[in-house]
Amino acid sequence: MDRLIEAIENAQNPSVVGLDPTPALVPPQVVASFADEVRDSVEDPAEIPAAQLAVAYFEFNRAIIDAVADIVPAVKPQIAMYEAIGPAGVDAYTMTCEYAQQQGLYVLGDIKRGDIGSTAAAYAGHLSGVTGSDGEAQPFDPWHEDAVTVNPYLGTDGITPFVDAAAAADKDIFVLVRTSNPSSKELQELDLADGGKLYEHVADLVEGWGSATIGSHGYSRVGAVVGATHPEEGAALRERMPRTFFLVPGYGAQGGTAAGVAGMFDKNGSGAIVNSSRGIIGAWKKTGEYRDDMSAGEALDLVASAARRAASDMRDDLRVNVYR
Amino acid sequence: MDRLIEAIENAQNPSVVGLDPTPALVPPQVVASFADEVRDSVEDPAEIPAAQLAVAYFEFNRAIIDAVADIVPAVKPQIAMYEAIGPAGVDAYTMTCEYAQQQGLYVLGDIKRGDIGSTAAAYAGHLSGVTGSDGEAQPFDPWHEDAVTVNPYLGTDGITPFVDAAAAADKDIFVLVRTSNPSSKELQELDLADGGKLYEHVADLVEGWGSATIGSHGYSRVGAVVGATHPEEGAALRERMPRTFFLVPGYGAQGGTAAGVAGMFDKNGSGAIVNSSRGIIGAWKKTGEYRDDMSAGEALDLVASAARRAASDMRDDLRVNVYR
Repeated sequence: MDRLIEAIENAQNPSVVGLDPTPALVPPQVVASFADEVRDSVEDPAEIPAAQLAVAYFEFNRAIIDAVADIVPAVKPQIAMYEAIGPAGVDAYTMTCEYAQQQGLYVLGDIKRGDIGSTAAAYAGHLSGVTGSDGEAQPFDPWHEDAVTVNPYLGTDGITPFVDAAAAADKDIFVLVRTSNPSSKELQELDLADGGKLYEHVADLVEGWGSATIGSHGYSRVGAVVGATHPEEGAALRERMPRTFFLVPGYGAQGGTAAGVAGMFDKNGSGAIVNSSRGIIGAWKKTGEYRDDMSAGEALDLVASAARRAASDMRDDLRVNVYR
Repeated sequence: MDRLIEAIENAQNPSVVGLDPTPALVPPQVVASFADEVRDSVEDPAEIPAAQLAVAYFEFNRAIIDAVADIVPAVKPQIAMYEAIGPAGVDAYTMTCEYAQQQGLYVLGDIKRGDIGSTAAAYAGHLSGVTGSDGEAQPFDPWHEDAVTVNPYLGTDGITPFVDAAAAADKDIFVLVRTSNPSSKELQELDLADGGKLYEHVADLVEGWGSATIGSHGYSRVGAVVGATHPEEGAALRERMPRTFFLVPGYGAQGGTAAGVAGMFDKNGSGAIVNSSRGIIGAWKKTGEYRDDMSAGEALDLVASAARRAASDMRDDLRVNVYR
């Protein structure tokens, strides 16, 4: 986790921008501007809408990355948004990750994978890359992720391959512990016969999974996802998991506040990074400056300037309230 | 679930072939045979091993699909194996799904996705496809899946979008309940304060999630993944979840037997489909007929004939022991 912690220190900003584009979040003239470009590249006209969105998502993300790269330490693309439009979207996802890394950002791939041991080892290719049969020293890295999120429901053998891959490649993982959504309580808050709740049991597993990978800043390579919508539980988890760095989604659009996430940071103001997605990438919609007759370039400029302002506001909010 | 149940009845075979290629499962001359073809298609020579594997995986799968299409009702490609080699692998995955559907097979995408509501809705695009801004009646379907597997850790709001998409597209989902791997017990067997184990609580949720989508054969669109490695628990779950169809992984290579899975079928011999992956797609390795100096075509012929024999043996094993 050292690379992420140092990136946060350099930016003096414990926040990450969620790059989760949807058709509604990309100005329509940006999507429309790629109509001609994609028409020649698809075999079947039915593919055009998806191909157009894929190109538009990448250009949208690029505009945002350029606007925030000197403010934030990291971005978190949510692969679901890209899978929603098929393999063309997956290409836009990897291009986004690669471009963000090129701009010096730590890339947290929000992929929430999880499977039995042998299959988890395949998923861990996200971190380890592909080694050819001649075993060249430098594997090909198609995904360009510095960390990925992982689901704990399969237990240790579904996690170990990711931890091993992370350790070998100087990368990290974040395991779901307490998610930000309303119905997360249905499983995660279940009371166990031995005492405590399911998410607390998962928290203890996560702390253990990371124990062999503690870095120079005191945190392991196995982080935890703890939603900003659970401030008290998050503060208790901070005590319970002293070696586990937190990824905190749910700030902003989902209702989490800087005061609410304060307890998820340690006494040095480290230990967590807070994500905002729609609040930053959709900030252009709330400026009152958008016009239907803007060109695609003008619309992307507005997306970028609004995202920069929102990312800066979030940084300042976190600096005042949690990051000392 | 009606389409799957009818496909099983037509084949008189409740089994599904797991299309989970790995570098070790594809004969090396098949991979080597695509060296020239991919060299011209990549921008960076580092991409060659992954691009070669991607083409080889598709040709390997096609040989197996051709060999088993008249024996089995369904295939289950495991997307992790394809993601392991990056976006080129994802293309091989969708091409495999499309080809299998063209051969009349039901395609069960083993993707184990799961996220908060708004994100789950994006993942549900796997089932619903992409609708263009002009809202044409027939969405573009980039994934070619008839069903997908889903992780329950996020609760109802992470499941509902998949159920809605499945109902709209005449497709299905299978939610992880009791997985086949050794450490599945760490979470799934936890005793709850209110009695019962976590996987039983998940089982009750799954039965409820499907309740509005019961088909003409008595099973809902929300199936459950129940590992063949837990015969007694599986039989108890069969009683507990009368409207839930089971996907049963872990037969063969993982140690599950036909006798062990018998209790997961209902009294009519329906209610479950059993997966085998390595036991079928890797059967060529156990024939004693493979030679290093075979051509790529000869090696694929051996893969196909061995897979057909193994799939036929599995069908007969299940017919004798469970499918009456």
